[in-house]
Amino acid sequence: MNMHGERDGRERLVVIGGDAAGMSAASQARRMRGPDELEIVAFERGHFTSFSACGIPYWVGGDVPERERLIARSPEEHRERAIDVRMGTEVVEIDVAGRRVRTRDVDSGAESWTSYDKLVIATGARPIRPDMPGVDAVGVHGVQTLDDGQALLDTLARTRGRRAVVVGAGYIGVEMAEAMIQRGFEVTVVNRGKEPMATLDPDMGRLVHRAMEGLGITMVDDAEVTGVLTHDDGRVRAVTTRDAEYPADLVVLGIGVRPETALARAAGLPLGTHGGLLTDLAMRVRGHEDIWAGGDCVEVLNLVSGQEQYVPLGTHANKHGQVIGSNVGGGYATFPGVVGTAVSKVCDLEIARTGLREKDADRVGLRYESVTVESTSRAGYYPGASLMTVKMLAERRTGRLLGVQIVGREGAAKRVDIAAVALTAQMTVEQMTALDLGYAPPFSPVWDPVLVAARKAAPKVRERD
Amino acid sequence: MNMHGERDGRERLVVIGGDAAGMSAASQARRMRGPDELEIVAFERGHFTSFSACGIPYWVGGDVPERERLIARSPEEHRERAIDVRMGTEVVEIDVAGRRVRTRDVDSGAESWTSYDKLVIATGARPIRPDMPGVDAVGVHGVQTLDDGQALLDTLARTRGRRAVVVGAGYIGVEMAEAMIQRGFEVTVVNRGKEPMATLDPDMGRLVHRAMEGLGITMVDDAEVTGVLTHDDGRVRAVTTRDAEYPADLVVLGIGVRPETALARAAGLPLGTHGGLLTDLAMRVRGHEDIWAGGDCVEVLNLVSGQEQYVPLGTHANKHGQVIGSNVGGGYATFPGVVGTAVSKVCDLEIARTGLREKDADRVGLRYESVTVESTSRAGYYPGASLMTVKMLAERRTGRLLGVQIVGREGAAKRVDIAAVALTAQMTVEQMTALDLGYAPPFSPVWDPVLVAARKAAPKVRERD
Repeated sequence: MNMHGERDGRERLVVIGGDAAGMSAASQARRMRGPDELEIVAFERGHFTSFSACGIPYWVGGDVPERERLIARSPEEHRERAIDVRMGTEVVEIDVAGRRVRTRDVDSGAESWTSYDKLVIATGARPIRPDMPGVDAVGVHGVQTLDDGQALLDTLARTRGRRAVVVGAGYIGVEMAEAMIQRGFEVTVVNRGKEPMATLDPDMGRLVHRAMEGLGITMVDDAEVTGVLTHDDGRVRAVTTRDAEYPADLVVLGIGVRPETALARAAGLPLGTHGGLLTDLAMRVRGHEDIWAGGDCVEVLNLVSGQEQYVPLGTHANKHGQVIGSNVGGGYATFPGVVGTAVSKVCDLEIARTGLREKDADRVGLRYESVTVESTSRAGYYPGASLMTVKMLAERRTGRLLGVQIVGREGAAKRVDIAAVALTAQMTVEQMTALDLGYAPPFSPVWDPVLVAARKAAPKVRERD
Repeated sequence: MNMHGERDGRERLVVIGGDAAGMSAASQARRMRGPDELEIVAFERGHFTSFSACGIPYWVGGDVPERERLIARSPEEHRERAIDVRMGTEVVEIDVAGRRVRTRDVDSGAESWTSYDKLVIATGARPIRPDMPGVDAVGVHGVQTLDDGQALLDTLARTRGRRAVVVGAGYIGVEMAEAMIQRGFEVTVVNRGKEPMATLDPDMGRLVHRAMEGLGITMVDDAEVTGVLTHDDGRVRAVTTRDAEYPADLVVLGIGVRPETALARAAGLPLGTHGGLLTDLAMRVRGHEDIWAGGDCVEVLNLVSGQEQYVPLGTHANKHGQVIGSNVGGGYATFPGVVGTAVSKVCDLEIARTGLREKDADRVGLRYESVTVESTSRAGYYPGASLMTVKMLAERRTGRLLGVQIVGREGAAKRVDIAAVALTAQMTVEQMTALDLGYAPPFSPVWDPVLVAARKAAPKVRERD
């Protein structure tokens, strides 16, 4: 490969985006085909490759002492494996018919074309940044990239005030609330929804609301942020909603992300209703034999609802990369879809979900029964046993498991994996009551909390049959 | 019901054994049918009902402060629910043809017959007590019943020496080793097998051996205990093996249990190769319309091997009771079988297994590939991330998951539930690589350790196909 696109007979794989999906794809392709067969060029417009965006809240909060820990593999390490990573290089156009991409050097602005035989689009996501007055004030931070994290840490070091407002109460929002508490801030979370964690049903979100208040966090639900007020020197002073003003020395935007698909859209590639690229099960862009896409820029099939969904998560990005790399490298792999599993925590509060919420089931036409139970993480008599609430949805008639949500303390989050596997296997709640789960007093009551929920759901489905 | 067996027109359910399986069955039957329809009489020869035998090591070790915490429901509480519990009453004969049982008052020796319409046998297990000199010495204790636990605690209070020998290194053995450490003893574990935890493959048992040594426990493997030596006053002084003598101020027998089926055998009821009662899927004793059996006195179907197995575990006993009670009460429920899940811990070491070991697979004619991986409980950069070793067996050709064993620290044990559900669903390791498991840095690496193992197993199965 050279900068002018001349070719030496080898196949050339071009990867757009040097993070989880892109670099996993590149690495797996390299494992399967050596540099004499396949040339791999990856373009990354930022300063880092293969970093854990999910780890940023813990770096900002101080649990992870340094940025480098979040980097799984540096550009140099990729280059040692014969992956030609071009940092600070943005792809500005995909010429599908010409099988080439136009790149721009971020510093110099110099542009050139690079041709490809196979293309991987892994452009990721961009954070939602509300269009409101003051959003660019000094002290207002997103947390999407390592540069964002560093900027926030720099502000933390400078800021004398101790009032933080977190905008948004989804995964990023609650994790950043924890980070700010750990940094000694008084934290206010301002949230547009009726309850925090809109990925849960409101009744379960209510538990999160209460627990977060219990942690000393001021929770403002049902409130849209309308602007950011500043001091004369441009530093943030407060966050405003329609009804109120929340003093702030620091503002963290944790509103979520959207698929970064401007390039793909301009190239005429197929996008779904959530704005993400649409792929087939092999992660090929639909209708395009030699273009793959994965990670935060694609939509994925939800195996429970049967519909595409946008789920930007590092674990999916890594799986996509693996699948793409295998296929590009001449192997065979598929990504069958997701069931919608996600876990998070705020201090010692653990939050987990998988499958469908009530409103998801309603939307796709599924009728269901819903049960909520309270149980404990360990045998009730064993020290450290803590309460958890498990909500379970099961389809009427068939009794098929549709979703599980768990809010509790230690041992709550990863219990959702039981339901994630059961959803994948399309188990009924009746079948689940017989599951042979690990039992010993330090680890579970004699009926695991998930089984307690299934035992309550099973007769309810029967009664309504 | 009266003591002479006269009848008042109601159906009578007789339950033999007042612990988990028996009293769960009684309680569930009572929920379904009121006292005007169904009379329930339960005979228990001991002093307690519905207690957690699995909790005894934690009571002895001091984690559970008092015996009463281990009792889920007292005889009085059962009686309040119209279950006529007769304590200190042993059933000494089942007259199947006459549909009656002969009971003996443990204190007075008085005997009488009680007739039944339906019978539940829940006689539990008896501990294996090696037939060797000195086994009845003062200071030698089993830990099967609450009385056993109390006797051991009494000895602990009296014993000045601080050397404990635990005989056996299965679940009870390793849990009692922990209990003795917590009580400030120097602990030696003498074990007949090549490695501790014979329910694991030896390579995984080796990890347990090393970790237990790391906890300061003296591990003596491959050694059969031949006798117990005593002081002149009859107190235990040492445990002997063929080759050595281990000083002991206290000896705990943790060798395991056998099904308590002498009554059933005498009555001509069908027993399996492990000595447990054989039932159908509704937990009825095979060939007997009105006799049910459950808990530690029955064999269960292993869904992976397709053969009966003896798995005395409280969680199965509770499920059996639930199923029996539903069926006796006129409902319908089945116990489809187990996959062989078990979890345990020794201090901070967690041990888990499900499915088949290599030798189980060999025995039932299954060919397999086996992989072992090391991964972490949390993202590698997140504080508290600890190593765990996951071993996975998959069938050749089909790639079906056959078993998983995990040894590690925090977060290792309950991860086995992922595999337990996958085994139940007969998933292949290839399918497992796509499982949508909970991911966030405090809870898992981006590839959960179980997925890491599946990712290694999948190509290995393919290569050998």
